[in-house]
Amino acid sequence: MTATAEQFTARHRETLDRALEAIRERAFWTPYPEMPKAYGEEAATTGKASYDAYLGGPFPLVQPGTDELVGGETSPYGVELGVTYPHPDLDVLLPAMRAAMPQWRDAGPDVRATVLIEALGRLNARTTEIAHAVHHTSGQAFGMAFQAGGPHAQDRGLEAVAYAYAAQTAQVAAAEWEKPQGPKPALRMTKRFTAVPRGIGLVIGCNTFPTWNSYPGLFASLATGNAVVVKPHPNAILPLAITVAVLRDTLSAAGFDPNLVALAAEKPGESLAKVLATRPEVRVIDYTGSTEFGEWLERNAPQAVVYTEKAGINTVIIDSVEDYKGMLGNLAFSFSLYSGQMCTTPQNIFIPRDGITAGGEHKSFDDVATDLATSVDKLLGDDTRANALLGAVCNTGVSERLKKAESVGKTVLASRTVTNSDYPTAEVRTPLIAAIDTTDTDIYTAEWFGPISFLIATDTTDSAINTFRETVTTHGAITAAVYSTDDTVIAKTEEAALDAGVNLSVNLTGGVYVNQSAAFSDFHATGANPAANSALSDLAYVANRFRVVQSRRHI
Amino acid sequence: MTATAEQFTARHRETLDRALEAIRERAFWTPYPEMPKAYGEEAATTGKASYDAYLGGPFPLVQPGTDELVGGETSPYGVELGVTYPHPDLDVLLPAMRAAMPQWRDAGPDVRATVLIEALGRLNARTTEIAHAVHHTSGQAFGMAFQAGGPHAQDRGLEAVAYAYAAQTAQVAAAEWEKPQGPKPALRMTKRFTAVPRGIGLVIGCNTFPTWNSYPGLFASLATGNAVVVKPHPNAILPLAITVAVLRDTLSAAGFDPNLVALAAEKPGESLAKVLATRPEVRVIDYTGSTEFGEWLERNAPQAVVYTEKAGINTVIIDSVEDYKGMLGNLAFSFSLYSGQMCTTPQNIFIPRDGITAGGEHKSFDDVATDLATSVDKLLGDDTRANALLGAVCNTGVSERLKKAESVGKTVLASRTVTNSDYPTAEVRTPLIAAIDTTDTDIYTAEWFGPISFLIATDTTDSAINTFRETVTTHGAITAAVYSTDDTVIAKTEEAALDAGVNLSVNLTGGVYVNQSAAFSDFHATGANPAANSALSDLAYVANRFRVVQSRRHI
Repeated sequence: MTATAEQFTARHRETLDRALEAIRERAFWTPYPEMPKAYGEEAATTGKASYDAYLGGPFPLVQPGTDELVGGETSPYGVELGVTYPHPDLDVLLPAMRAAMPQWRDAGPDVRATVLIEALGRLNARTTEIAHAVHHTSGQAFGMAFQAGGPHAQDRGLEAVAYAYAAQTAQVAAAEWEKPQGPKPALRMTKRFTAVPRGIGLVIGCNTFPTWNSYPGLFASLATGNAVVVKPHPNAILPLAITVAVLRDTLSAAGFDPNLVALAAEKPGESLAKVLATRPEVRVIDYTGSTEFGEWLERNAPQAVVYTEKAGINTVIIDSVEDYKGMLGNLAFSFSLYSGQMCTTPQNIFIPRDGITAGGEHKSFDDVATDLATSVDKLLGDDTRANALLGAVCNTGVSERLKKAESVGKTVLASRTVTNSDYPTAEVRTPLIAAIDTTDTDIYTAEWFGPISFLIATDTTDSAINTFRETVTTHGAITAAVYSTDDTVIAKTEEAALDAGVNLSVNLTGGVYVNQSAAFSDFHATGANPAANSALSDLAYVANRFRVVQSRRHI
Repeated sequence: MTATAEQFTARHRETLDRALEAIRERAFWTPYPEMPKAYGEEAATTGKASYDAYLGGPFPLVQPGTDELVGGETSPYGVELGVTYPHPDLDVLLPAMRAAMPQWRDAGPDVRATVLIEALGRLNARTTEIAHAVHHTSGQAFGMAFQAGGPHAQDRGLEAVAYAYAAQTAQVAAAEWEKPQGPKPALRMTKRFTAVPRGIGLVIGCNTFPTWNSYPGLFASLATGNAVVVKPHPNAILPLAITVAVLRDTLSAAGFDPNLVALAAEKPGESLAKVLATRPEVRVIDYTGSTEFGEWLERNAPQAVVYTEKAGINTVIIDSVEDYKGMLGNLAFSFSLYSGQMCTTPQNIFIPRDGITAGGEHKSFDDVATDLATSVDKLLGDDTRANALLGAVCNTGVSERLKKAESVGKTVLASRTVTNSDYPTAEVRTPLIAAIDTTDTDIYTAEWFGPISFLIATDTTDSAINTFRETVTTHGAITAAVYSTDDTVIAKTEEAALDAGVNLSVNLTGGVYVNQSAAFSDFHATGANPAANSALSDLAYVANRFRVVQSRRHI
């Protein structure tokens, strides 16, 4: 081990131990502050300058087997980034990555974990720079890009490092074994147990959360001794290029081969994810995106362990509520945040057709619909505030679905276009809310990704719970919520959530939203329904990224 | 929880805790004695009587959806068992099994683990009876059937229960989460985390080790809340029928639905394993057997998590040795045990063509070959002892391969047929040893399941290590061994074993054999090479058999 690696190990041992405690105890914890002011005024200036310096030129990343430079990201805010990135000749890059692995394997779980925590700390120090990159590739408003793209993504990375460490150290590294033989001398052996990586991990990034959805797989695979090739979404390369560069620098500083991590940017129409996913060197795959490609990966990469997060139909059941205003405000925020372009945004809102009891008063189905629409309108009435919440639509699919949704059921709230004075060409859209009926299954059993929510009239809360159980079992969901003042209804919904395998939020009326999950405490997705085959993060997410190989001999 | 379940939980907590310590510390431990005398004279008599009572009639097992009785096991010792078993109508049986699951899920990991430890204790008490059933279905000699089919299988079952418990309790069951909000009141929530099962587990048993290879998957799936349908090999049903009956009785006694476990015996030509493996209710599959069907399962059951143990080419490298006689005796025993019908039996023995140094003397390649042949001959010279070691050939494939091997390379030791005076029709065969060359890759890169070993002449030990690394990486292996007095050679072989992902035994010359692995200490297989995609047992073997579902609400 180099002196620098030793330094990292000593410096970050405490953070690792605290993270190990956090994943067990699941109380609130984070080492990475989420408020920009914690990073100081200077960071805001230098971070912006660092981001600006990337624009219009080749990204500073030197990798083996680079055969040309590719790029072409256009910000949802209308800016052409003009950055180019190395495109790999895989027959050169992948062997170079494999060659880097034995030293990393032999370093062991402690060194790997602490070197990666050093890298996360360096990423944290560059949060502002990364925030601008996330903002201009995903279309997230800057405030959200800062939190979700920076500290919250770093949290998820550290969480994965902690789980990987816990799984690899679930048994001692060496043991003495002594088996009694009656009157004869005991049989005695020493045994060594070594965590070995599977091979090269492939992380396929998404457009909407380039860092948040990539860091868990990236750090989990690295922490378990694998090399990782990162294939970003063609329109969200920069945040992951910065990430790869920071990791390569950190690995080099610690005396490891930087080729343990590489970026694989693609040419238009190249389908590089498919090419990489079926390479024999690739033995672990992490993917966030469409159900179609997720299922393709699950079926067509048998040489790899495949972790996917796909589409789902997130569901809310409204039965009754004490704090009606709190519920309306909470849901309005959830519908609006990042224009509903989160895998966690609620889509299907079941409401009894005879209405609900709210704060002791009766509210008809139409009352609730109108009040929800009014809440969204109020929340987004001011354009500055609307822009700060909505961000920008990141692809034309969202706009097309909004158009299509106009003719679905009865429009309770039409989507309007908000002006962004800084970026006049950005498409900023408020949520569309439509009222439909529980018989309109064709509509609400599909995912309408974007700011589109359906208020679904049901006969009773019981029938809503049954439909929830069935639709989530069949079509999947990342999130679910229930509002009820009746413990029996809550218990029934919890039972249905266990059956359907979806995480449930109960009576959210304050500053916690169903579309948010906190690392070290909330599991993101469950892996128990079709929306995802894994969760961020748990033991199942890390334990099969490595294998244990033993050597035994007599003492 | 019933009073009986409470009793089980209190009674077995200590065993569970001790098992949890054992899987971490990996020193010697077992709660199930392996010597028949520990079970007493009476157990021997009553166990035999219980076994005899099954013969020639319907097995006492009442399950939902039984549409006819099937059977037809013939012992490799020539006895027709004449036992019949329930054949399932899956459209009745599987729904009944699913209906049993919510109560089992809600009981939680502690109750599930201790109820299963109770079942293991009951199986342990019936070891003699199970030993006769294993003996007469696998063809294992009685002594081996007793140990491997009884206590060693029970050990592996308990080990899986311990891992399952550890994985499910990796986080608290409930947490309070409090996030500071600067000057505003903190956000406070309670969160509950529930382990939920995947669905119905399918365990596909094998002919040679009906209990040992089935118990890990069976107990791991049950301990994580799943129901399990056991599909035995058509010629090794009885040991698993007894197991299923004991589990059903134990579950009933504890107040659970016995349909959490069911036997699925098949009609000739029905391919019931394929039918079951593709049922949507089946979400976990455990399989031991051919590479062909294992790969079919890995590719054709995308709705399930699939754990397979397949074929491999187990390898020994002989470089040099201090205790030459010890090595010869150790290898002779390994070749002979259960006629080489173990997935762990060494097949490819690499020896430098210029010979080796043994106890300070030079031994030519031919010397080693002759001495190995002599050792096997001596070990099996007495027919009673030979029968006790060899058992009987369990299917005609083994006999056919022995015939084919006669014309491979230079026969160093021919296989002879041993008379079994108790069972004159049993086919009992001693090992065949053939000398070939390292250029004969077509021969030694295939698995020759049975008592067939190749002594492969190599240019140098280094080239043997390289061939070992390459062939195991490509074709897989469950075991590997090296003999060397040179630390550099051992280190190089260990490095190759890490690269190829196979467990290594170094310089075995005494009472530990390469084909044996001890539960709680040795991992069986690694999951890191094509011979198996998982190991018995580790966290990866259990962590994806369940998922965690959370529910959160404000305090």
